[in-house]
Amino acid sequence: MNDTELLARLAAIVGAAHVLTDAADTAACLTDWRGRYHGACRALVRPGSTAEVSALLALCDAENIPVVPQGGNTSTCGAATPPADGRALLLSLARLSRVREVDTANDTITVEAGLTLAAVQQVAAEAGRLFPLSLASEGSCQIGGNLSTNAGGLAVLRYGTMRELTLGLEVVLADGRVMDLLGGLRKDTSGLDLKQLFIGAEGQLGVITAATLRLFPRPSARATAWLGVADSQQAIAYLAALKARFGDRLTAFELIEEGCQNLLAKHGHTLPFIAPWALLIELSDSGDEALLTDAFVDWLAEQQMVDGVVAQSESERLALWRLREDISEVQKLEGASIKHDIGVPASRIPAFIAACGAELAASFPGCRVACFGHAGDGNLHYNVSHTRPDNARLFDDEAAVNEIVYRHVAACRGSIAAEHGVGQLKGQWLARYKDPVALEAMRALKRTLDPKGLMNPGKWLTAG
Amino acid sequence: MNDTELLARLAAIVGAAHVLTDAADTAACLTDWRGRYHGACRALVRPGSTAEVSALLALCDAENIPVVPQGGNTSTCGAATPPADGRALLLSLARLSRVREVDTANDTITVEAGLTLAAVQQVAAEAGRLFPLSLASEGSCQIGGNLSTNAGGLAVLRYGTMRELTLGLEVVLADGRVMDLLGGLRKDTSGLDLKQLFIGAEGQLGVITAATLRLFPRPSARATAWLGVADSQQAIAYLAALKARFGDRLTAFELIEEGCQNLLAKHGHTLPFIAPWALLIELSDSGDEALLTDAFVDWLAEQQMVDGVVAQSESERLALWRLREDISEVQKLEGASIKHDIGVPASRIPAFIAACGAELAASFPGCRVACFGHAGDGNLHYNVSHTRPDNARLFDDEAAVNEIVYRHVAACRGSIAAEHGVGQLKGQWLARYKDPVALEAMRALKRTLDPKGLMNPGKWLTAG
Repeated sequence: MNDTELLARLAAIVGAAHVLTDAADTAACLTDWRGRYHGACRALVRPGSTAEVSALLALCDAENIPVVPQGGNTSTCGAATPPADGRALLLSLARLSRVREVDTANDTITVEAGLTLAAVQQVAAEAGRLFPLSLASEGSCQIGGNLSTNAGGLAVLRYGTMRELTLGLEVVLADGRVMDLLGGLRKDTSGLDLKQLFIGAEGQLGVITAATLRLFPRPSARATAWLGVADSQQAIAYLAALKARFGDRLTAFELIEEGCQNLLAKHGHTLPFIAPWALLIELSDSGDEALLTDAFVDWLAEQQMVDGVVAQSESERLALWRLREDISEVQKLEGASIKHDIGVPASRIPAFIAACGAELAASFPGCRVACFGHAGDGNLHYNVSHTRPDNARLFDDEAAVNEIVYRHVAACRGSIAAEHGVGQLKGQWLARYKDPVALEAMRALKRTLDPKGLMNPGKWLTAG
Repeated sequence: MNDTELLARLAAIVGAAHVLTDAADTAACLTDWRGRYHGACRALVRPGSTAEVSALLALCDAENIPVVPQGGNTSTCGAATPPADGRALLLSLARLSRVREVDTANDTITVEAGLTLAAVQQVAAEAGRLFPLSLASEGSCQIGGNLSTNAGGLAVLRYGTMRELTLGLEVVLADGRVMDLLGGLRKDTSGLDLKQLFIGAEGQLGVITAATLRLFPRPSARATAWLGVADSQQAIAYLAALKARFGDRLTAFELIEEGCQNLLAKHGHTLPFIAPWALLIELSDSGDEALLTDAFVDWLAEQQMVDGVVAQSESERLALWRLREDISEVQKLEGASIKHDIGVPASRIPAFIAACGAELAASFPGCRVACFGHAGDGNLHYNVSHTRPDNARLFDDEAAVNEIVYRHVAACRGSIAAEHGVGQLKGQWLARYKDPVALEAMRALKRTLDPKGLMNPGKWLTAG
């Protein structure tokens, strides 16, 4: 099918105003958020309904046209950037942005894939409920992307990842058939739980068009503290003690290494103190805030902790969170780094940090490691720089650094991709460290659900 | 391969003592728990390790021998009973009963499939942790069966189903390859989450041999009450109010209809009172029990509830739970019933009960409905009897009763199988009410993972 004919067929489905080919319209969608990947597309189409997505995919299936679904284009792994060959249709989900149902008595919300995460949080709040997924890009990332990446973020310790927050999905398969797996059931053993395959598939098995998500009571009480500890072993001991004492109230448990604290201080942030390791801990609860704060302060006193502050007001609470959230920003001011989004069992964090750090220091004397993250989930951001003086030619060392880091992750039975997905960035490492039987099964499932290989080509399931 | 040769090959893998063919040895495994299904097998084999399971499946694959995995044989849907043709090998997982690892700092336990649920609860307790899955057959059901059914039970409201309690799996595929998906990660976006396919697959895609499960802090406080409410609408209003006030502390919310209460009274149980609907509510928490009880009593006082008792001791607490647990028993004393294990959004429970009950009453004047269950999850056990005087020829009406019940379930976007699975019992209803695109995708995945159709034949994925 030539371009003229294709564009006419696309326009007949979504309307001419939603078929874009000018570079001015498509450029922003053809480069990933970190600026590492640059693609091309035959057209950018913006369907407005599930039926339109279905018609588009049926057309692409018939004509063998690859399709790259894209939400807020905030992937850190190039998962939503099309290949450079320009054969693919870029499918924006942004116009699928309806809230289909809010069911407060069932604590569920059914939304379309193109709503931003912030918009879903907002709709939940207006209904007197909490949608707990929370992450840095929440103002622009979309629910479809959150689902396709199985996003994590700041509240997984208490509420789980996007997978655990999802009760139902609507998916358009590669051939255009619509699979209706929506529904707000907490218990359902009627057949295979197919939605699980599409959550975290990075758009390689089909296009998610809507989801039924879990809502929670809004906590009425919060207690937030910034603590200093001597080492990561002590941090993990506190994690266990906090769980034992406060159970589900423990909502966030963030670990920040000294180097990150120094960077924050250097770039104008005011810290309560600098410690070998800092912890940002938040409890939340229903009921009275003073009771929660008192219990937390009592517990802290029992620990005979040397350094620690408890937020005394909402502004102090937000200031502590700002420290955590600005780490990436101040790191960027210091220059490039080789970033890792890794997961290990929480019990293995101290051993991982010690062993991996030692090998990096031996291999790259003077290198810097910025280590921080959601330690309560075993999820660390582990960013390496200055492998050579003045951080020169850093990315020449990327493969060697990754080789060390991921080998130590694997030794802990960890994950090379805890919450950011694999995309284009980590396919080779996945191939190296994933169980080979599992990897072959994944590829077999891909061939079953997308026999022509049209869905989001060039990512880890088909590339490498 | 003739029987002599096959038995020799099997004995070479598992040892002759673990290849059983005498009726005395196999009979108990060839009939399901409810006594509705009767099968036959070529042999009952009892492997002692994952490697032996792998060797058995490779042999069966090469020789085209069907395999029926069996745990505690407590399925209520005939999921673990082999076909009557006697071609299948019955694979008992009972000897895979090692605890491979307890990681208290990561709050995980890795166990083999043949451990009973009660044994896993016990190992967790000895480690100072809670494994929260809890259900009637916990003394005999096995973890592999819990996983294959995605079991639910009494604490799903707070802790989730077996799926949500599982972080990793080890699976032997139909051709004998071992897929190692074990690991204790809370966050992992490295590829498709394949374990989800095998959870709830009722042994039709492969054999689960081990799992890494989540552990939780043991609650130190409990508050339990038995309340009377006027109707199911009021019950659901209390559910929302309890969630708002007590958040995650709400651990159980069970609904029991008046007829069930009358049966309990008739058969010698002492009830606090008889109400149109009774609620059994349990809160649990870390911290002080008196605080929790006081808060609960205060909340109850605010509701101006007419009928309600709060357990004042552990023995009173257990006595209230016994009422709930003995409902099935006293029902059985009254004769047979047509049982349904259904799920609807909690918000739809009142509408479902009203509409379905009215149609049943109109179609079968004088019929009795015993309705009780885990209303906090939208999961009801809905058992119908006395469709004719003296409960005569009840099962002649089974199809007609099911037709009514499942139609009302479907109208609520509910599930015909909330926590018991599908097995042999409900395949025809699944085929009728599941999204046809989803059903076809499930069958396609079955063909991909088990191309010869050898895994647990005769159940819903291949039958009907």
